[in-house]
Order: sequence, then C-alpha cells, then structure tokens
Amino acid sequence: MPQTLAEKILQRHTDQDVREAGQIVQCRVSMVLANDITAPLAIKSFKAMGARQVFDKDKVSLVCDHFTPNKDIESAEQVKVVRDFAEQMGITHYYECGEVGVEHALLPEKGIVGPGDIVVGADSHTCTYGGLGAFATGMGSTDIAGAMALGETWFKVPPTIKVEIEGTPQEYVGAKDYMLNLIGRIGVAGALYKALEFSGTAVDDLTVEGRMTMANMAIEAGGKVGLFASDAKTLAYAAAAGRSGDIELSADAGAIYERVVNIDVSDMAPQVACPHLPDNVKPVDETAGLRIHQAVIGSCTNGRIEDMREAAAILKGRTVDSKVRCIVLPATPGIWKQCLKEGLMEIFMASGCIVGPPTCGPCLGGHMGILAGGERAIATTNRNFKGRMGSLESEVFLSNPAVAAASAIAGEIINPAKL
Amino acid sequence: MPQTLAEKILQRHTDQDVREAGQIVQCRVSMVLANDITAPLAIKSFKAMGARQVFDKDKVSLVCDHFTPNKDIESAEQVKVVRDFAEQMGITHYYECGEVGVEHALLPEKGIVGPGDIVVGADSHTCTYGGLGAFATGMGSTDIAGAMALGETWFKVPPTIKVEIEGTPQEYVGAKDYMLNLIGRIGVAGALYKALEFSGTAVDDLTVEGRMTMANMAIEAGGKVGLFASDAKTLAYAAAAGRSGDIELSADAGAIYERVVNIDVSDMAPQVACPHLPDNVKPVDETAGLRIHQAVIGSCTNGRIEDMREAAAILKGRTVDSKVRCIVLPATPGIWKQCLKEGLMEIFMASGCIVGPPTCGPCLGGHMGILAGGERAIATTNRNFKGRMGSLESEVFLSNPAVAAASAIAGEIINPAKL
Repeated sequence: MPQTLAEKILQRHTDQDVREAGQIVQCRVSMVLANDITAPLAIKSFKAMGARQVFDKDKVSLVCDHFTPNKDIESAEQVKVVRDFAEQMGITHYYECGEVGVEHALLPEKGIVGPGDIVVGADSHTCTYGGLGAFATGMGSTDIAGAMALGETWFKVPPTIKVEIEGTPQEYVGAKDYMLNLIGRIGVAGALYKALEFSGTAVDDLTVEGRMTMANMAIEAGGKVGLFASDAKTLAYAAAAGRSGDIELSADAGAIYERVVNIDVSDMAPQVACPHLPDNVKPVDETAGLRIHQAVIGSCTNGRIEDMREAAAILKGRTVDSKVRCIVLPATPGIWKQCLKEGLMEIFMASGCIVGPPTCGPCLGGHMGILAGGERAIATTNRNFKGRMGSLESEVFLSNPAVAAASAIAGEIINPAKL
Repeated sequence: MPQTLAEKILQRHTDQDVREAGQIVQCRVSMVLANDITAPLAIKSFKAMGARQVFDKDKVSLVCDHFTPNKDIESAEQVKVVRDFAEQMGITHYYECGEVGVEHALLPEKGIVGPGDIVVGADSHTCTYGGLGAFATGMGSTDIAGAMALGETWFKVPPTIKVEIEGTPQEYVGAKDYMLNLIGRIGVAGALYKALEFSGTAVDDLTVEGRMTMANMAIEAGGKVGLFASDAKTLAYAAAAGRSGDIELSADAGAIYERVVNIDVSDMAPQVACPHLPDNVKPVDETAGLRIHQAVIGSCTNGRIEDMREAAAILKGRTVDSKVRCIVLPATPGIWKQCLKEGLMEIFMASGCIVGPPTCGPCLGGHMGILAGGERAIATTNRNFKGRMGSLESEVFLSNPAVAAASAIAGEIINPAKL
C-alpha cells in the first residue's frame, strides 16, 4: 500500500501497519521537547503520574528560550524548576545560559532532530522540523509528560493535503511568502489535524532553512505536521549538524491525498498577514503606507542566518526610521556568532537596530519588544492574534525579513522593491 | 570666601552668594532628566501644576532605558506616555528605539551633560555626572516636574566630605574598588545629604569613565553629589563629546570640609559588596568560593567601553561556567558598536556570554536577567538591596568587571588574580 510521507515516517516508529488516515498508531518517539513555559507543567504531570525517570536522557530536550534572559521572578522560578529537573534526570539536551537559542532553530542546528524522526514538543511550533522531513508536532504538557516517561505516544494518522508549489519567485519573495499565501488560501483551519506535504520545483529550490520557515507555520493552518521530503540538501544539512545515518524519505507514488493545492509563485508579491489572523493575507502593496512603531526580525520562523542576511541586505547603508524600534534577534548563539563573522552586526547597528540575545521574546508577547495600545508592528514571526505581541489594542502584521527590514526603514509597511 | 567644588558649581548657576553649608540657594539648572519609569510620574505632576511648556526644549532629556526593549504592556504604555510628551513639547533629547542607551552613560557620551553643569534627574544615579565635574543629583518626580517647567530649583548647600585617594593600585583594582571601599568605610548613610569631593593622585590617574563609576555610587553612601574636579582629561572627554566652552573647575584652597577621609589604594584588594547593602564590603578573597548563578556586566556604573575591555580581557580564551548566565549589556549603542569594532563581541560570544542591548534591565530587577529564589549573582551594578535583582531570597554581590568576569568563568566568586 503506497504511503504518504506522514505515513511513511510514522511507519518507521511503529510495529503496526500504517495503512490509512484515521487509524490510531502507537509510535516510538525520537525526541521529546519542552521549554521554560511548558516544561514546568509537563514536569508536574510527570511527577503526578508517578514517573521517576525519563525514558531516555538523550531523547528529551529542555530549552529555556521564551522568557530568557529571565524577564521577571516568575520566569526565573520556572527556569529553576526546569534546571533542577534536568539535573535530577541527567538530561543531555538541557539549554540555558549562554548556550540557549530559540528551540526550533537550536535543535536542528545541533542535529538533535532530523530526517525521519518523530518529535513531539510542548510547543505548537514543533512542526518546524517538518522542514527536515521529521514528523514533528506540538502537544499539551500532559501528553508530553507521558512521552517523557514512556518514549512513545499515539497518533491518529492524519489525512494529507499535498501542496505543489511551482515556479521561480521574483526578488524579495520566498518561503515565508509561499506559506502565508497558502494559509491565506486554505484558512487557519484549512489543514486541521491534517498533514501538509509540500512538493514542487519551488520547494526543491528552497534551502532547508526555508523549508523550516514553511513547516513552522503548518500549525497556523491547523496542520498536525508540515512535511518536506528529505533530499540531498536535507542530508547535507543533517550531516553538517553532526548527524549520521539519515536517509532520503519521500511519499510513495500513488499515495492517497485528501486534496491537492497548486500554487504558482512566479507572479507572487511579498505577502503580509494582516491583523488579527495569519490567514488574513494580502500582497504587501495592499498594506503599504501603514505606519509602524516596531519591526521584529527573528523567531523560530525567521531567525536563522539566511533571514539575518536577507534583512541585512536591505538595511545595509540605510537608516531605520527614528520612530521605529527595529529589534533583531538571531535565533541561536551560533547564528549570532555567524552574524558577527559576516559583518551583519555592524550593519544592524549602523542602521539603528536593537540587537538582542536569542529569545522568543516579543513573538508571544513575552518580553524584549512589547506593544502599547495603538501601536503597530511588522514581524517575521508566525502569529498575529489579537494581543499576541502586547496590548489588545495593538496590531501585528506578518511578513518575510526583507519586508520587515524595508518597513523599518520607511517607517511604514512597504514593498522592498519600492524602497 | 574659599568654596568647595560643590559650592563653586552652584555659584555658577545662582545670583546669590554661595557662602556655607546649610544655606538655601535657588539655581538655574543645565539639564533636567527623567526615564521611562520616572518621566510618566513627572509628566503627570507637570500637567497637574498647570505647566504648558518645558522651560527649554534643549534642556530636558527623556531616556527610555529601564524596561526597554519594552518588557511588557505596562512598560510599553509608559514609554508611549513619554514619547507623546516629548513630541508635544518638541524635546530635543528624547531617546528611544535604536538610539537609546543607559541614561547615565548616554548623556555624557553625547555631551548633553558636562563640567560645571547642574543636572537634576528623576533617577538616583544622576550623581554619575559628578565624574565630569557636574553638580548632579537625583530628585523625586514632582521636583523634576517643577524643574522641567521652571528651569530652576532650590538646593540646600551640602557640607562636603573630602576623600583623598592616594597610591598606585595593583592589577584588577580600580575605580569601582575605591568606591566600594569608601562606602564600606563610611557606610550607606555616611554622606547623607553631603557632597563627596574626590581628590588625590589615584583620582588624578583615573580616566573620566572611572571617575563616573565612582561618582555613580555617591548615592550609595547617601551623598547628594560625588564630585571630581574637571581637569584636562575632563575637558578632552567633553570636547570629544562635542561640547565647547567648558572650563577646569576645582575647589578653592582653604575651602571648609566637614571631614577628610584618606584612602591608600596601594594594598587594596578587589572589593566586593556582599548582601544586602553596598556598605557590606569585603576584600574579594573573603567571599571567594561562593557559587554564583549569574554575572551581570553592564549598568550605569560599569557599562562603559573600558569596563567592557576589562571584562573581555578576562574572558578571552576562557569559557563561562555552564551553569552561569553571564549577561553583558554595553550601556549605549555607541559602546556596543565600539565593542564590535574592537572584537570584544567575538570574545564575549566565544566565551559563552549572553550579549543584550543597552538597558538598565537586571540592575533594578527590571528584566533581562532576574534571579529566582536561592540564586546568587555577581554584578558590576550599584545596589545589592534585598530583592533588588529579583526574588527576595536571592543575593547580589557587587564588584568590578574583572571580578564579575572571572567569577563567571570559575562559577564562583574569585579574585581574578587567582583565576
């Protein structure tokens, strides 16, 4: 029986036959993840269920990235809970202090997750690893506690929507725009508990980082996972991250899809998701001219080195509008150092950006760039729900790094091509 | 009648004869300062007193440095209040966004304050500018509102304690240690409503930055001001900051001092102020071996370029203890860029530090490095009151940048000479 990519990956982790959407399968997990917000809840459940040791100390990752450097006493206490648990359990992949980065950028970079893995995380954007060809999905803290204890969990095999993306994009259009466009087409519930499986020449052309940007937002269409076949690029990425033994994985010919969505990117303009949902997507020119108070360049969606380069290419030799806070947050210490090495930090600082440490920070209204009432931000992040970045009376527009950087310079939303 | 340095500066700003301690004098002020915490209060008072315009839009500085990049909605709303007021009044020296730095590092760097000035600020560490030979002091927000409206305020002429510091310090001993030592000697109320006037060969040898480090902590001994004569170094600093017309100013021979304190620094060890007061000062070796969870290198006390260099010299080629958060916060964008230029950022990142944007942040328990209960920090900041950096059950030790950096590496408080 031919399998979709989702089915094929699940099959690798179960002794059951994975035959069809809707089937319940029990799978062994490759990695279980939680962060400084969710781990304390998971740890509480873990203890409440009488668990005494994690199933494998090398297969649990705890990353304190959301409110760090600790924004307040409460967040400091949460990190302490996670730290104590990590020490008690002997967790290998515990990240705090100078080693911490945004979890979904950090784990791929360190080779902790990769092609063919099943990753469950107490964080909705765990789906990011689909860009590497991993079946990766967010779960509640209680389910994560169970997975930490048992090393396995159940899934209902998701039906798959195939997304075929073809064409060669114009300048300043890329992965983020493809994904925003898709979400705009199918809506925030368009892939509810379904797998998105991406293919097509435009997808083949993407870097692994770009694929992670797309997979990251699968959940914004309600998707259980957002999957890319692992190809030579994926294996090279995984190898560079120190992994070995990964293989190429793609759907079988003849696999059954619930639906196929075709997108041609040839004439696509940079896309912007307007308040207050990620599916309220318009070509950038339809939002042009709106004054902004803040631009955020970073997050698990667009905080990787190629995003930094894309922003820097726009910012170079230009000055951020004096009334705009342009906050640049490279997503990991590794990316931060690479920015230093490539001279991007000089560009950011010369143009008047605020460069911060790796943190989820403003994306979730955590810290490091919160909006007051009446303020408007453009952000390379993944969610623009009402009040997401601060006041309920603030607005967040989502875009790619080039649009965010150009808008920071103009002081209003603008198409980088028209800067 | 010979005048102390405090009297001499006050004299320049009043038509009254400044004759003796205790006298009330009405003075014109050179600069009025408030920040994102205090300006909203001052603005409220300003409006309540019926004021409609600031006395001089070039002589009011509003610096949003404490909770920025905005840590939460409340702080974002406060910044908005300050921004709107600054715009309404046409304030020249309004700092937000990418231009903001820690106020007491930023204003000297920009030449906004300098020798012979009277500066009043709604911030207790306004006394920093005494390092430049300015009569600079913190006031409550209501007094600041009055000064913003009228351009003048009253002072009770403070009696002066002369502090004569002589000798050549050993390695890893400098301005911060001299000041901690003094505070340890005279106590946190030892200079209550008095002027501290520093002199002696060790003071002459200090850089202007070092003098600002000392003056910054005058308030930690209760001092109204901490004053240094302006000399050739001061004038060179002021000129480099774009000022002109400044003159050398020092006390008259025969001026009357309430007391003289003599300090010889020749045998002084690096000093550490232990919890929970800045006068609980010990030589570093008496605190050595205490485990730390966090090191903070920055603040208005020690966030200037020479502090960054001092820390980097220790960190270079070494690695921060994996259980220590070593948070480096260059105090202004100018210092941040200079760190880039000198390769200090590479050193900080290679050693495992967390580099943040200019902000007061953790010093006052604001954000960007708050302590949980049971945690201990060493910090180059100025106050270690109970709960200052977070939980009431946390502890803060104050030191110079070399001690803080060395302790971050060792994971415990250590004398850099013994690293």
